Amino acid sequence: MTSLTVVKVGGNLIDNAIELDLFLDAFASLPGKTLLVHGGGKLATNMATRLGIETKMVNGRRITDAENLKLVTMVYAGFVNKNIVAQLQGKGKNAIGLCGCDLNIIQAVKRQHPTIDFGFVGDITEINTKALADLIESSSSLVIAPITHDGKGQLLNTNADTIVTEIAIALSKIYQVKLIYSFEKAGVLKSLENELDVIPELTESLIKKMQEEGSINTGMMPKTDNAVKAAKNGVGEVVIGNLVSIQNKISEGTRVV
Amino acid sequence: MTSLTVVKVGGNLIDNAIELDLFLDAFASLPGKTLLVHGGGKLATNMATRLGIETKMVNGRRITDAENLKLVTMVYAGFVNKNIVAQLQGKGKNAIGLCGCDLNIIQAVKRQHPTIDFGFVGDITEINTKALADLIESSSSLVIAPITHDGKGQLLNTNADTIVTEIAIALSKIYQVKLIYSFEKAGVLKSLENELDVIPELTESLIKKMQEEGSINTGMMPKTDNAVKAAKNGVGEVVIGNLVSIQNKISEGTRVV
Repeated sequence: MTSLTVVKVGGNLIDNAIELDLFLDAFASLPGKTLLVHGGGKLATNMATRLGIETKMVNGRRITDAENLKLVTMVYAGFVNKNIVAQLQGKGKNAIGLCGCDLNIIQAVKRQHPTIDFGFVGDITEINTKALADLIESSSSLVIAPITHDGKGQLLNTNADTIVTEIAIALSKIYQVKLIYSFEKAGVLKSLENELDVIPELTESLIKKMQEEGSINTGMMPKTDNAVKAAKNGVGEVVIGNLVSIQNKISEGTRVV
Repeated sequence: MTSLTVVKVGGNLIDNAIELDLFLDAFASLPGKTLLVHGGGKLATNMATRLGIETKMVNGRRITDAENLKLVTMVYAGFVNKNIVAQLQGKGKNAIGLCGCDLNIIQAVKRQHPTIDFGFVGDITEINTKALADLIESSSSLVIAPITHDGKGQLLNTNADTIVTEIAIALSKIYQVKLIYSFEKAGVLKSLENELDVIPELTESLIKKMQEEGSINTGMMPKTDNAVKAAKNGVGEVVIGNLVSIQNKISEGTRVV
């Protein structure tokens, strides 16, 4: 099996031009086949403010109305995606920027909920493994924005951590996948007081125990839950960490097994 | 040689959801290999107004400063491009949305001018024929937004009529290309008083004569100039017209030879 490194890069890294440049240097230095899923960072929030688009919340859950969908499509699939691709090209890494509708790579269904109308939020129904593998084999890096579609003409907003997890699971059938959830910390920390004191390995039961004790903060929980799902579903290697630290051999991050 | 239909769709068609839907029906009904280059329409202007971004003009020429580049990248490569692709998928036409940085398909250089700083405007230096042909051969439609890059990490704003002309010329080396500049009129009209009285064929010398007489309006001139360039540089068939009228056999448009 050929190796494939699948990376998620989160919001805080995208907002800072210098941090993003360092991250893209690290990504461009990865050997072999690579795939990057990015979020949109604070730029979407800043644009929303400038455009007078309100962030809608119902019962603490974010709602994607038509105006918010237009916003995330512009910012994620347009500005962020194409700037990342152009910068990778500048670093000599050939890349192609996509979202879920392109070649029908990620199909989703508008979220159904008995009491809350989430608007244009998509729950993934199918990853087009063949189309992704064909693009990966044509030897370029894939850069994917967290926008999906329903196959009937409607774009949908889907969480980037969920997308990267489902893509890594699907591609594990044909590649030896290493999945890295890259963010601003070096990994899951033993305590917030020491930024370099990273827990080297976590199991599902340990994560559950830590969640019950409250020693994993709520912001980390979608990441740890997704990492557990990936590890349980065939992804060979799952790491929560910082790609720049990993590539510079500062910290290997937290391995989730 | 395999046939390839290359279509440019202009602003006015994109602004109207019903017109765009009709256009995409006509595009999806084209047989064989297809490639679409789109502009951005009035949505970019509307967004600019909402964001408080000024349209900058110097000596009657539009300038693309950093804010305007961000705007067109969001609107053209994000909102318009991904909505067109999602709608084509909904019509059963597999498609992929790209701009010039993706797989380095269109490289450009920041425009140099002795007296005017055009900002982030790109003049095309190279069309990556191989990358385009590989994508076309993987049997999907290509949908291209008018954003290019300089290969050093910088996105650039490039005229959509210029892009479609250069792509059609480059791909004529390996395909039998039919190029259609599609817009709201049925073709180049004999007079503006009769919308269906289309000039069936125009030559370069006839176009020059009409331009001198003032019988081609200035808005049409970039289209006729590009059409002449394409016809002179190996593009097998060049038409200025309306794809919906052509597909519905209402008018064949104006052939430029």
